[in-house]
Amino acid sequence: MLEKITPRLPSGMRDFLPEELIRRQFVIERVAQVFEAFGYEPLQTPVLELEETLLGKYGADAERLIFHAQHPGGKEKLALRYDLTVPLARAFAMHEGKLSLPFRRYQIAPVWRAERPQRGRFREFYQCDVDCIGVEGMEADAEVISVAVAALQRLGFSDFAVKINNRKLLTGIGMYVGLEGAALTDLYRSIDKLDKIGADGVREELLRSGIAAELVTRVMELIGAETAAERGYAAAGARLAHLRQTLAAVPLALEGLAELERVFAYLEASEIPSEMVAFDPAMVRGLGYYTGPIFEAVLLSADPEERVGSLAGGGRYDDLIGLFRKTSLPTVGVSLGIERLIVLMEKRGMYPEPLQRTLVQVLVTVFNESLRPAALRLASQLRKAGLSVEVFAGSAKLGKQLAYANKRGIPLVALLGEDELAAGAVKFKRLRDHHESLCPYAEAAQRAQALLRSLTDH
Amino acid sequence: MLEKITPRLPSGMRDFLPEELIRRQFVIERVAQVFEAFGYEPLQTPVLELEETLLGKYGADAERLIFHAQHPGGKEKLALRYDLTVPLARAFAMHEGKLSLPFRRYQIAPVWRAERPQRGRFREFYQCDVDCIGVEGMEADAEVISVAVAALQRLGFSDFAVKINNRKLLTGIGMYVGLEGAALTDLYRSIDKLDKIGADGVREELLRSGIAAELVTRVMELIGAETAAERGYAAAGARLAHLRQTLAAVPLALEGLAELERVFAYLEASEIPSEMVAFDPAMVRGLGYYTGPIFEAVLLSADPEERVGSLAGGGRYDDLIGLFRKTSLPTVGVSLGIERLIVLMEKRGMYPEPLQRTLVQVLVTVFNESLRPAALRLASQLRKAGLSVEVFAGSAKLGKQLAYANKRGIPLVALLGEDELAAGAVKFKRLRDHHESLCPYAEAAQRAQALLRSLTDH
Repeated sequence: MLEKITPRLPSGMRDFLPEELIRRQFVIERVAQVFEAFGYEPLQTPVLELEETLLGKYGADAERLIFHAQHPGGKEKLALRYDLTVPLARAFAMHEGKLSLPFRRYQIAPVWRAERPQRGRFREFYQCDVDCIGVEGMEADAEVISVAVAALQRLGFSDFAVKINNRKLLTGIGMYVGLEGAALTDLYRSIDKLDKIGADGVREELLRSGIAAELVTRVMELIGAETAAERGYAAAGARLAHLRQTLAAVPLALEGLAELERVFAYLEASEIPSEMVAFDPAMVRGLGYYTGPIFEAVLLSADPEERVGSLAGGGRYDDLIGLFRKTSLPTVGVSLGIERLIVLMEKRGMYPEPLQRTLVQVLVTVFNESLRPAALRLASQLRKAGLSVEVFAGSAKLGKQLAYANKRGIPLVALLGEDELAAGAVKFKRLRDHHESLCPYAEAAQRAQALLRSLTDH
Repeated sequence: MLEKITPRLPSGMRDFLPEELIRRQFVIERVAQVFEAFGYEPLQTPVLELEETLLGKYGADAERLIFHAQHPGGKEKLALRYDLTVPLARAFAMHEGKLSLPFRRYQIAPVWRAERPQRGRFREFYQCDVDCIGVEGMEADAEVISVAVAALQRLGFSDFAVKINNRKLLTGIGMYVGLEGAALTDLYRSIDKLDKIGADGVREELLRSGIAAELVTRVMELIGAETAAERGYAAAGARLAHLRQTLAAVPLALEGLAELERVFAYLEASEIPSEMVAFDPAMVRGLGYYTGPIFEAVLLSADPEERVGSLAGGGRYDDLIGLFRKTSLPTVGVSLGIERLIVLMEKRGMYPEPLQRTLVQVLVTVFNESLRPAALRLASQLRKAGLSVEVFAGSAKLGKQLAYANKRGIPLVALLGEDELAAGAVKFKRLRDHHESLCPYAEAAQRAQALLRSLTDH
């Protein structure tokens, strides 16, 4: 006999009970549908990768958060995936002979990071990535932005905008004021803190890093650090034109601006609403591996409880695939902050009502043991019509069975007693309003469907 | 700059590329729908469990196959889940205050076992479990059998049968011939080898273990070792009645027989076809933790390449929940051999045709860069109607774009050149038969849907 142990979860890990999981799956299915509508197809990589695949890719701080795995006597050094991007590059390089370019894939799956557990931060959490490999042109960048917008809209969000910038432009601005190498990295790092430390903070940092005062002023003006990025295609066009004049002598900046012009043109043609896009030359997206356009969807909410960071973000990172391949391939991707989106949707009550409790639509009650076969037969009929049906298990008085349906949130109860059986009938009870409805046995499924429809029609 | 490494997978692990993954997801979605139709709801537990949760539950041989995990400096000893059953017991015991009884859950998820890799055996593979906690009566046993049958039918299988037995009956037979303790375990172990070593082999083993010859003959007769179990409710009823007479003096055997009678009665009421059930008193299901009825769905195929073991199996294991809880609760479950089913479905070509290649339904071609905005607008229109649409990325001659659609298996191509644009029209080309169809721009989505329907209608 085994010693009994207290059931516990590892720190930072979660169980998802049905009620919550049904809502999570609702979100995941909806965004997957949107991805597929844009021609993105699912890819699944294993949870465990070789250590050599992951190490050296994320920086020393991140690497400390990787979970390592091994089995007794195992020779391979393994690790749980830390994100979905490095596995994508590894898998693409391994299988490219079987894939056609462009390769559009999505993956919605958990990753593991041993972050210090705190409220709302978990060690196993989902990432939701869309990437397009093999397209040099800006149509790919505009496409993944469109995918992100369509996914957010599909979930019911409308108060958000996508800020768009280009790493080439940022670097061009650096070159314009004479910065390169480490100084350029400092510039990136300072501008990236704009939201946190404000324009004055950034200016001070830049001055401290040794950039001349008039150049700092110039940079601040060029990135529009003092003003929030104005939304809309017209505003973006005006600002791009202005920068094109100023930076006319910096080829890289001009290249970045031309790319952005194309991105905005494609977004407009793709019917992305004007109020959902903004050119924001002050947006950096950390010190990541981006090489071209970058973008970030942010919530336009005044509610301080809804300051959740970006809803989605991504960009072009043309060097990624080169990690596992002789030459790299142009790649652009976007990641939806799916865990944040789920939290927001919970907070805002954005799930349709019937999802709130259970998937079961009908509870078939059992008057007594001798009537159980009749109940089973009815359930089988109802299921054939596509209904989700539970037969009451165990024996209990009818009142208890109804109370059980109520507690579980099952909307409809079927009653099949001696009287109904003798009359070749079934009685349904809609629990919300106790409405009862008698119908011939043969019409039971139709009647149940009509009663269920009546619950969602208004 | 990182040193380039050859992209490799850990041994026994797989990537699923879109074409294969789409088929796997099709199977998983279909069985999940069936589970939900019976009132089973999804539960998700984390991939990593505490070592203490898993160790001691599976036996020493199995335990050597467990993958252990840890992060640098981490204090918790973790392990990747080895099955979905122990995590269910752990999760149920932790959260039962938030769950109502009976708790019906399913989980379709990967588990990890460091088995020696060989053809068709993987170290990350999916399990697909349905369990019902809290029902003492045989309605739960009949229910999970019905769920397994309905799931197999939903996938398109019809040539299978569920063999059903009861551990109480097996133990009763042992008591009848005077065996208990270790001798009973030997009896189980020998009978379990019936398929492998045949009736003669089992007889020899039993004789060698010291059971008197006339008792061995008696056991072989009672379990029907010499003949294949006959299918159908009538045959089951006759055999149960026969055993009831012979074992009249063994209360445990009578209890087992009475349980089986109820199981068959409920299955018949649930409209499970007679040819899909068989009472098989020689079926043991290994040395597992079962305490009552046991069952196993087997393929009735003469094809030696289809000898894949059981398609599904399960039973009652009333002690499981007690691993993490003061008192146990009656539990019954069934596990679908989802990886085997997928292999069989591939071999038999059981997937509907449109699933074979890609999810993309329409490729919108791009005549030249200046027409890309028009192509994007059309794609946006088609997606609004629910279609899955890819816009050709990059620039290539039309012939190349059509060849791309062909290669990818995209069934329909939209053509939007200067002529069509000027005429306010769109041209579609059905690639299978090169059928072309011109329609007004506003009717594009309808036309595309009609053309796609025409591909699946026959």
